[in-house]
Amino acid sequence: MDTWILRKTGFDPQDAPTDGNRFLCANGYMGVRGVPEEAGSALFPAVNLAGIYDQYQDRWREPVNAPNALFIQLSFNGQRMALGKREPLSHETEIDYRHGIYRRETEFGPVSVRSERIASMAECHLLADRYQIRFTQDGEMALQTGISTDIWDINGPHLFDFQFEAGEALLVQAITGQKKITVAAAQSAVCDFDGTESFAQDDSGLFRTLRRYVKKGDTLTVSVFGAIYTSLDDPEPGRTAQMLCMEAKKKGFDTCLRAHKDAWEQIWERCEMRLEGDEAAARAMHASQYHLNSIAPRHAGNLSIPARGLSGQTYKGAIFWDSEIFFFPMFVYTQPEIARSLLRYRIETLPGALKKAREYGFRGAYYAWESQEGGEEGCTNFNVVDVFTHRPVRTYFRDKQIHISGDIAYALRSYYEITGDRRLLEEGGARVILECARFYLSRANGHLDTEEADFADVIGPDEYHERVTNNAFTNHMIRHCLESALRLKQIFADQPEWFEDLLKELHYEKDWPLIQALCGHIRAPKTRDGVIEQFDGYFDLEDCSLDAVRARLRDPREYWGGDHGVAGTTQIIKQADVIAMMALFPGDFTDQQTAVNWHYYEPRTEHGSSLSACMYAVTACRIGRPELAWELFMKTADIDVTGGGKLWAGEIYIGGTHPASNGGAWMIAALGFAGLQMKNGRPELHPNLPKELQRLSFPITVNDETYLIEVTHSGGTIRRMKC
Amino acid sequence: MDTWILRKTGFDPQDAPTDGNRFLCANGYMGVRGVPEEAGSALFPAVNLAGIYDQYQDRWREPVNAPNALFIQLSFNGQRMALGKREPLSHETEIDYRHGIYRRETEFGPVSVRSERIASMAECHLLADRYQIRFTQDGEMALQTGISTDIWDINGPHLFDFQFEAGEALLVQAITGQKKITVAAAQSAVCDFDGTESFAQDDSGLFRTLRRYVKKGDTLTVSVFGAIYTSLDDPEPGRTAQMLCMEAKKKGFDTCLRAHKDAWEQIWERCEMRLEGDEAAARAMHASQYHLNSIAPRHAGNLSIPARGLSGQTYKGAIFWDSEIFFFPMFVYTQPEIARSLLRYRIETLPGALKKAREYGFRGAYYAWESQEGGEEGCTNFNVVDVFTHRPVRTYFRDKQIHISGDIAYALRSYYEITGDRRLLEEGGARVILECARFYLSRANGHLDTEEADFADVIGPDEYHERVTNNAFTNHMIRHCLESALRLKQIFADQPEWFEDLLKELHYEKDWPLIQALCGHIRAPKTRDGVIEQFDGYFDLEDCSLDAVRARLRDPREYWGGDHGVAGTTQIIKQADVIAMMALFPGDFTDQQTAVNWHYYEPRTEHGSSLSACMYAVTACRIGRPELAWELFMKTADIDVTGGGKLWAGEIYIGGTHPASNGGAWMIAALGFAGLQMKNGRPELHPNLPKELQRLSFPITVNDETYLIEVTHSGGTIRRMKC
Repeated sequence: MDTWILRKTGFDPQDAPTDGNRFLCANGYMGVRGVPEEAGSALFPAVNLAGIYDQYQDRWREPVNAPNALFIQLSFNGQRMALGKREPLSHETEIDYRHGIYRRETEFGPVSVRSERIASMAECHLLADRYQIRFTQDGEMALQTGISTDIWDINGPHLFDFQFEAGEALLVQAITGQKKITVAAAQSAVCDFDGTESFAQDDSGLFRTLRRYVKKGDTLTVSVFGAIYTSLDDPEPGRTAQMLCMEAKKKGFDTCLRAHKDAWEQIWERCEMRLEGDEAAARAMHASQYHLNSIAPRHAGNLSIPARGLSGQTYKGAIFWDSEIFFFPMFVYTQPEIARSLLRYRIETLPGALKKAREYGFRGAYYAWESQEGGEEGCTNFNVVDVFTHRPVRTYFRDKQIHISGDIAYALRSYYEITGDRRLLEEGGARVILECARFYLSRANGHLDTEEADFADVIGPDEYHERVTNNAFTNHMIRHCLESALRLKQIFADQPEWFEDLLKELHYEKDWPLIQALCGHIRAPKTRDGVIEQFDGYFDLEDCSLDAVRARLRDPREYWGGDHGVAGTTQIIKQADVIAMMALFPGDFTDQQTAVNWHYYEPRTEHGSSLSACMYAVTACRIGRPELAWELFMKTADIDVTGGGKLWAGEIYIGGTHPASNGGAWMIAALGFAGLQMKNGRPELHPNLPKELQRLSFPITVNDETYLIEVTHSGGTIRRMKC
Repeated sequence: MDTWILRKTGFDPQDAPTDGNRFLCANGYMGVRGVPEEAGSALFPAVNLAGIYDQYQDRWREPVNAPNALFIQLSFNGQRMALGKREPLSHETEIDYRHGIYRRETEFGPVSVRSERIASMAECHLLADRYQIRFTQDGEMALQTGISTDIWDINGPHLFDFQFEAGEALLVQAITGQKKITVAAAQSAVCDFDGTESFAQDDSGLFRTLRRYVKKGDTLTVSVFGAIYTSLDDPEPGRTAQMLCMEAKKKGFDTCLRAHKDAWEQIWERCEMRLEGDEAAARAMHASQYHLNSIAPRHAGNLSIPARGLSGQTYKGAIFWDSEIFFFPMFVYTQPEIARSLLRYRIETLPGALKKAREYGFRGAYYAWESQEGGEEGCTNFNVVDVFTHRPVRTYFRDKQIHISGDIAYALRSYYEITGDRRLLEEGGARVILECARFYLSRANGHLDTEEADFADVIGPDEYHERVTNNAFTNHMIRHCLESALRLKQIFADQPEWFEDLLKELHYEKDWPLIQALCGHIRAPKTRDGVIEQFDGYFDLEDCSLDAVRARLRDPREYWGGDHGVAGTTQIIKQADVIAMMALFPGDFTDQQTAVNWHYYEPRTEHGSSLSACMYAVTACRIGRPELAWELFMKTADIDVTGGGKLWAGEIYIGGTHPASNGGAWMIAALGFAGLQMKNGRPELHPNLPKELQRLSFPITVNDETYLIEVTHSGGTIRRMKC
């Protein structure tokens, strides 16, 4: 098995939603869904853009898909050689994880087509496609290349006032409905053959057609270059896009490809996780790292990563806690500048978090649950549609999932501890931590007649149980956030004036002692036989099996959570919650505690989210049971290889890639199998290699030093590498 | 129109559930549903007992129905002359509100039957029925009288180990499943004719049959006496029941009827509300007062009244806030010993309230939302069944409707202020108020960084909006409760030691100053253009019409409330909430404030509860708009005349009589039309008589003095009456 390649044979339009994710090419600026060049909207094509959003009417706000600048459509003797329109004799699709190359090869009978496509990792605005045609009959060929506007939108349309410009570089420009942002797509093409050229423009886009008579055995190649710019990138996005296309055309496909591959090689050098002993596992790890790296915002210093990456508009293209808890670890340990970008996004969107807290009657920073540009809350009050009544259901993710602020503070503190880089705290990070702590202070439920404080009416990671009190995970994260705020004083002990000025500027004088007091008075979770109760009253809920709960469904697409859902009134949980807490705070729990809780909660966990398995797997390793982690690891790492994962929550489509699983796979290998932990500013290992693996090795960068970690069944080593 | 009589012509088994309520006879100890004597369970017969509950398996706990001791079944020439089995030529049913007499008259063809039935108001264990038969053909008659065990149970069965004893007084005894309480039903009969007597006993009961040959024109009469006792009443309930039957048989029907009618006359003397000018209104008022008086617990000093009276097992036979807020006013002003019984029930069930508070992690007294004997919470966590999935839905009435404790404190304080009787406070009432205040202290959400306190995650009177924060009604009721606790010090100023001892006994030293502090720091409700926001965020909810919301229903039986219900996410409310607050605290709001809020909330109110219209009607009078009150008054007063009201909430049957409306009718007339208020310990009037009425008069008893109130369009008078 080539552990860098995923190949699929055959074509079924039913698989298009999933295949578009599995064979995605992306470069952080944009994601090109893995569909054939000739795909119209029925096959869910998209050039999904990072960080640009639009709302159409009162529908959900979501990211904008650009016009498809790599559209290619071949006709032969007047018939379209198009998947989905014509049954192929054979078809293969492939994604090359090492170099981010989509390939397809299709025999249509009279013609065969093969292509290679990239979203350039060397130049984030550039797309390129080399398209080769082989003829097995004589006949009249028409090759259309151009910019298709027949793209997939979930809650669109988002682009209006289209302008078309034909010429050597085609140009389609449009503006978004809400913020009037110009989106420009240009295309140039270079052919190794001649023909009669014509241009056409209609509702579906702008196209150039080359016609010629071909003979059996002829092989023709066209290289197509696409460029995408928006007015957020460039004052003249259209001109600039055209120039980039023309420049690429001049360089040629091979040159563009080489630069792209070199960029990928550099990425792998910094982060490649090698698994030896199980090829499927090794490939799954490559897939995970490929997907997560391909959507990292390398072109910007202040973007984060949506929960479904750049695979489409699912989950509104929004930033969730996935960024800080699931994507962050791989990046902070291997490419800290990307971790920094994720956190700078939060620093820059602090105003949105302050606004959200005020909106709910609180102080400090309450970050958006589904954060779009500027920290705007993208999460609606009605985030699920009931399958029986087809009515939107009031959900509380937006209102009650308060751990998000603590998750961000947690990542900020981790960033400082792993990189040793204090600048991010100076440049807004400290302010974020202080405002998050202030939010919790104002959100605390103080008992007037006792010393204790509750955090009532929250939702923890397990979203199936809405509006609970004293969620153990949330309370732990809150306490950590409060401590982190207080800890800043030591961190800035050498700049006491700067820190005092910051406190003054934030009017923090009265809050500081209150936070000190609150810190020690958050109600401790109840335990029963060592099991920490997930929230007040959880143990009183019906204790039944996952199968029993599943059997109560009346519709397979039903949402399990809330008061109407089958799980909401039972002990069945969606995903790791107490165990997520234990995974994130290894120093706070003994192995014995972790083991007891693991064995209680795992059978009660649906793993209905891609955020679940990795937490269980990491902790399984910690308790010395890597064999329990293996299946969870494979499930996590393989999710975008097999195309697993839920597609529906109620009537809402939730398909896409799974960056949290991708990051989770790295977490399991690094934090679980290798047992990587920071101790007094230095990395250390507690290896628990599963029997399926012989060896595990990967680089990390800590405190500006790069180390190579190697783990075998005889132990682990941390070796400093030369720069 | 005879304003004391309700008569219905015709028989339709479909109407049986409603007619059983409309023609109910009751005497506080038991209620006999208004169904014909021969009814089997298909027609929903029940002898519903007060204050005795049972749970069968894991079904809902509900009151126990006794065996039907007034069963009478006539056959002629081998054919059963039974409604529901045989189509009658004519049928009339009648209830005499003045004297609590059920009458029926049925022509079956060969025979006609007429009867009168009472649940004796003079002897609460006694039932009596005089049954007359007229023959229009010769033939063989068989008259069965006996004790039927074929009774209606919603969540039964509740009676087991039946014992049957034939003889001059038949006896059926059984014990309840859960608490092994003996329930005994006896019957004796006296006939004015001879026949061949035989006894039979089977699954459906114990029966005596008299057979004889009759001739056209013959008229025969049987008087049947039933007696019900339980082991809660008497150590030998069976013997005692038999003795009571035999005694009644000796006295004869007319004597029993006379004592019963005299007792009713005495009741009317103390409370009759006379409306002049509109006969339908006058009858509706008689109906309301009849129904409420007939279920008053005159036989006991420590019982309250279930929300559906004694009309069946609906709402688990439980005591709701209806008792203190809706039944209490008529009783406290006309028959204070009954008001005292309602409150003694709460005093005696304080241990249950203390237990419930502890169960939820609070201190003090959190009264049951659906209180059964001993204050046990009858409300389940799943109080609605979803009509689409047929699954129980998690509801929060039990957990979150915290105003109940304040409602009880409110009635205790009103009782003291209206009767001037302090003994009830001494004998436990003060303790209840103090424990309720303590509950609110522990339930308060103190903001650690401000001086304010919230009451978060509650349900107000408008149950469609679950789990809201700072419900205006609830917060107002809480503040009143806290003030009432503090006020006790003045009330007992002449017994300071006694009061100090009480505080000591309750370990109240630390709580007292905290309650003083909390009292002034409850967050005030937001207002917009003078409209008080029902709860935090209510104004942000969708503001659409009642019709628009109703149009979203996919099933007529759908529950409107909660996150899945059509109303829960809109400003449409189930019942008076802000307006209920204004109705209950007239001194705290100006007429202008009341008017503004009335006109905002009324169009947004479904009036989906019988607790709603009266609050709007009382306040409409206060703002000088009695014409707005009239329709609401008629709807309220007429509900058990017409048999209106909802029959279903989700898949749960909620039919029955509507004591809260019955009490509400009195409230509208007394507190609205007459504008009765207490001022400095004396009654005063603020009349607002609607144009439909010429005159209104009624007696009240205040501070042991009896007054006659008279209101006409030229004003009102309060005249002291001689004792």
